[in-house]
Amino acid sequence: MEPLFVIKVGGNVIDDAAVLDQFLADFAAMKGNKILIHGGGKLATDLAAQLGIEQQMVDGRRITDKETLKVVTMVYAGLINKTIVAKLQAGHCTAMGICGADNNAIQAHKRINATIDYGFVGDVDTVNASFIDGALKQGTTLIVAPITHDGKGTLLNTNADTMAQEIAKAMSPYYKVQLVFSFDKPGVLLDKDDNSSVIPTIDKASFEQLKSTNKIVAGMIPKLENAFKALDQGIETVRLGRAQDLPKLIKGDAGTIIVHGK
Amino acid sequence: MEPLFVIKVGGNVIDDAAVLDQFLADFAAMKGNKILIHGGGKLATDLAAQLGIEQQMVDGRRITDKETLKVVTMVYAGLINKTIVAKLQAGHCTAMGICGADNNAIQAHKRINATIDYGFVGDVDTVNASFIDGALKQGTTLIVAPITHDGKGTLLNTNADTMAQEIAKAMSPYYKVQLVFSFDKPGVLLDKDDNSSVIPTIDKASFEQLKSTNKIVAGMIPKLENAFKALDQGIETVRLGRAQDLPKLIKGDAGTIIVHGK
Repeated sequence: MEPLFVIKVGGNVIDDAAVLDQFLADFAAMKGNKILIHGGGKLATDLAAQLGIEQQMVDGRRITDKETLKVVTMVYAGLINKTIVAKLQAGHCTAMGICGADNNAIQAHKRINATIDYGFVGDVDTVNASFIDGALKQGTTLIVAPITHDGKGTLLNTNADTMAQEIAKAMSPYYKVQLVFSFDKPGVLLDKDDNSSVIPTIDKASFEQLKSTNKIVAGMIPKLENAFKALDQGIETVRLGRAQDLPKLIKGDAGTIIVHGK
Repeated sequence: MEPLFVIKVGGNVIDDAAVLDQFLADFAAMKGNKILIHGGGKLATDLAAQLGIEQQMVDGRRITDKETLKVVTMVYAGLINKTIVAKLQAGHCTAMGICGADNNAIQAHKRINATIDYGFVGDVDTVNASFIDGALKQGTTLIVAPITHDGKGTLLNTNADTMAQEIAKAMSPYYKVQLVFSFDKPGVLLDKDDNSSVIPTIDKASFEQLKSTNKIVAGMIPKLENAFKALDQGIETVRLGRAQDLPKLIKGDAGTIIVHGK
């Protein structure tokens, strides 16, 4: 099987034009199969504020009411997605921007929760692997905005990390999938205040040890648990690191690689 | 050659949710090869006003400054495009929303004008016919937002009528192209105040006669001249009529059909 890099780029990177440009130049230059999933950054929050749309947060999660759905659709699937596509085309990468509604790429359902109504938030049901495979075989690089649809005409706001993981999982029967989370940290740190304390490799055994000795930042634990779940689902490796280090992340020369281990 | 319907739907239709829904249901039900190009409607103007972005008009044309470009990219390529795609998917039409930057579908250059700087307005240079043909052959219906790019990383605001005509022209070596302009009028009228005065067919000879006898609304003349130019470029017919009449327009049972004639 051929390798496929499924790369999520975080909101902090989107917000910094110089970092984003460098990241996109590096991404455009990457050979082989690749898919980019982008987050939203501060732009949607800023636009909602400018329009006087009040943002409700419950447990750190944004409630997506009807007006907020319009804002995220405009910002994620419109402005950010097409800006990225135009820049990649300039870098000679045949990019095509999509959201989950396009070609029924990612179908979701409105989140069901007994106590909190998250509004127009989607949890992923299906990924159209044959469409994605077809695009890859034609040399097209898909740029995915974190918006899905329910198949009944409604768009839904969906977490970009989850979308990256679901796409990676769906493609793993056909490719050796490398799932990369690129953001503003150099990887998983032993000491959260020391960027040089990156742990190069984590497998299940070392993860249990890190957890039991409290050597890992609490906020990192669910991310790593998700990563191991991804490995159980057939994904080859999960990599975490700085967007600025993309070429090194791809080669395994920077960031943290999470592997199954023995 | 197989027939291909290249359909432009106007801004007034986009602005009316009930009319748009009916139009999309009819469009989804159409058999065969089809492409939809949509205009912008009032949404972009409204959003710009809400954001306090002043809209400059020169000779009835909007000047697209940097902030306005962001607004039209959000509204056209984001909100309108993805709303249409989600609704078509619900109608079992395999729709994929694109702008000109996606897969380098439509490349343009920033308009050059000695006296007026239109800002980020694009005039079309090339249409990627092989990409569009590939999508059609896979049964994908492209939904095109009126945004292009210059190949150097910059998005450009482009007239949707022009985009429809350029796509129709580019596809005419491979398909029998029927170019349809669907809007809020029943066709070309003999009497602008009488919607029952639709002229069913216009060819070059009858157009010259209508012009010389002043029997045609002045505003319609450039549209018709463009239509005849389209026919000279290999497009089979140009049809104009109401979005509500789409099924009849397709069959030739409503609206005005413009043909080359003898």
